[in-house]
Amino acid sequence: MKLIKNVNILIVGLGLLGGSYAKGLKKLGFEVNAITKEQSSVDYALKNGIIDRGTTEIDSEMIASADIVIFALYPHIFVDWIKENQKYFKSGAVITDVTGVKGAIVYKIQDMLRDDVEFIAAHPMAGREVSGVENSDESIFLDANYIVVPTEKNTPEAIELCRNIGEILGFKFIAELTVEEHDDMIAFLSQLTHCLAVSLMCCNNTPGLEHYTGDSFRDLTRIARINDEMWSELFLSNKTALLNEMDKFLSSFTELYDKIKNDDRDGMRKMMKVSTERRKRFDK
Amino acid sequence: MKLIKNVNILIVGLGLLGGSYAKGLKKLGFEVNAITKEQSSVDYALKNGIIDRGTTEIDSEMIASADIVIFALYPHIFVDWIKENQKYFKSGAVITDVTGVKGAIVYKIQDMLRDDVEFIAAHPMAGREVSGVENSDESIFLDANYIVVPTEKNTPEAIELCRNIGEILGFKFIAELTVEEHDDMIAFLSQLTHCLAVSLMCCNNTPGLEHYTGDSFRDLTRIARINDEMWSELFLSNKTALLNEMDKFLSSFTELYDKIKNDDRDGMRKMMKVSTERRKRFDK
Repeated sequence: MKLIKNVNILIVGLGLLGGSYAKGLKKLGFEVNAITKEQSSVDYALKNGIIDRGTTEIDSEMIASADIVIFALYPHIFVDWIKENQKYFKSGAVITDVTGVKGAIVYKIQDMLRDDVEFIAAHPMAGREVSGVENSDESIFLDANYIVVPTEKNTPEAIELCRNIGEILGFKFIAELTVEEHDDMIAFLSQLTHCLAVSLMCCNNTPGLEHYTGDSFRDLTRIARINDEMWSELFLSNKTALLNEMDKFLSSFTELYDKIKNDDRDGMRKMMKVSTERRKRFDK
Repeated sequence: MKLIKNVNILIVGLGLLGGSYAKGLKKLGFEVNAITKEQSSVDYALKNGIIDRGTTEIDSEMIASADIVIFALYPHIFVDWIKENQKYFKSGAVITDVTGVKGAIVYKIQDMLRDDVEFIAAHPMAGREVSGVENSDESIFLDANYIVVPTEKNTPEAIELCRNIGEILGFKFIAELTVEEHDDMIAFLSQLTHCLAVSLMCCNNTPGLEHYTGDSFRDLTRIARINDEMWSELFLSNKTALLNEMDKFLSSFTELYDKIKNDDRDGMRKMMKVSTERRKRFDK
């Protein structure tokens, strides 16, 4: 299947990411329909021209007319949804997603999926601290990475189609990782950082601190405002990799702690030099 | 002493902060002189009209003509400088500083200082990831906090003068804290956050991570580019308070680790809700 204009796209889950996909794809001229939980999301999306049609029901005709189905749901709902409703998929349809963990879902879905439908996993590394279709904004993709996560079961055609979705939405960098590479990377870059921010906010409740806060504390804790329903599920869905990264962090933090305790200024400076050198690689 | 235009101001240490003070004060019409280590800093500052006069020598006449002396040096150099050169201070001069730790210097300086000169500590919570007078910029103060840190030895007049310096430089928020309050606050908000960023950069060196990094990781590690000479001294100068905050963080991080390990989703969500609620207070 090629990503041409008469392709019919179904978004399942019209939140911040689903809504941003819908906005971007609709502006590009595709027919975009949506199935989501709340009628208010459908109403908002229709009123603002984000989708062509939308419903809160399992509309078998709408599912059957979709060439591409993009899932923007919580991991566990997503897997159950496919189990229940895969019978409605059009033969030859390509299914993709936006889920932030892969090991916990990809094999499960590919194992149970009909043979004439293909699931190719993707992770658009974009987001905001607010949620809901009302906050959706396709410009969040422009500066973000889009990762395709194929397995042995995927065809080159589906991988190419999945990359194309990222390309036309304007992502800055498109890459491919294995499931395991993806989950290790996300455990370190995203999940561990959220653990640090949450732990930092929880460990000190001195009144008035906000009056003295500089930008570095604010930058570091921006992600401490966290969707607890989603992130607790993401953490548990990637538990082994996350605990492994937390262990590595603990070891590094404890090393610094001991150096401070032992007045080992040279040792501290060595760690700071490593940190400074490595951080340069992450400059935009 | 009132902060009126014919007041003569001496900056000792013409780096990023000293230079930004000089720029701001000079634009306000004060006579601003500087003593600093490098001739290149003097040359740059003179060429760009940041100071009236500058030298790398201990110029006793320049010191003796200053009504206000602002120290923007590393803590240990600062204390030694005063010990050596306080004989040159003008009688009635007010000395202040920009140092990020207070317990390790304030009492020491006040104890040894001549009776006819007053030291009132201040901490402008502003900075950039670059250093040197070439990068100085008085606009870094506009969105920043300025903290006056008086002790029992300080007079209301010096406290008022010190606040006035912050006010005319345009700081957003001016506050007073005791030495101990200041050092605890800075251990948590500034030093601990730098420890987290450094530890995070040191704990994982997987190649190519930078291609997958989102904004949250970048925001969190911005301060991982760190001046190791300065920060290792700041950490050791505030060791007890910093280790205490590191202990509190470790306890909170370990609590989250255990909840993830034990699949305690409710417990994780509870911490995330606390984090989200507290973080709101820090919104600008």
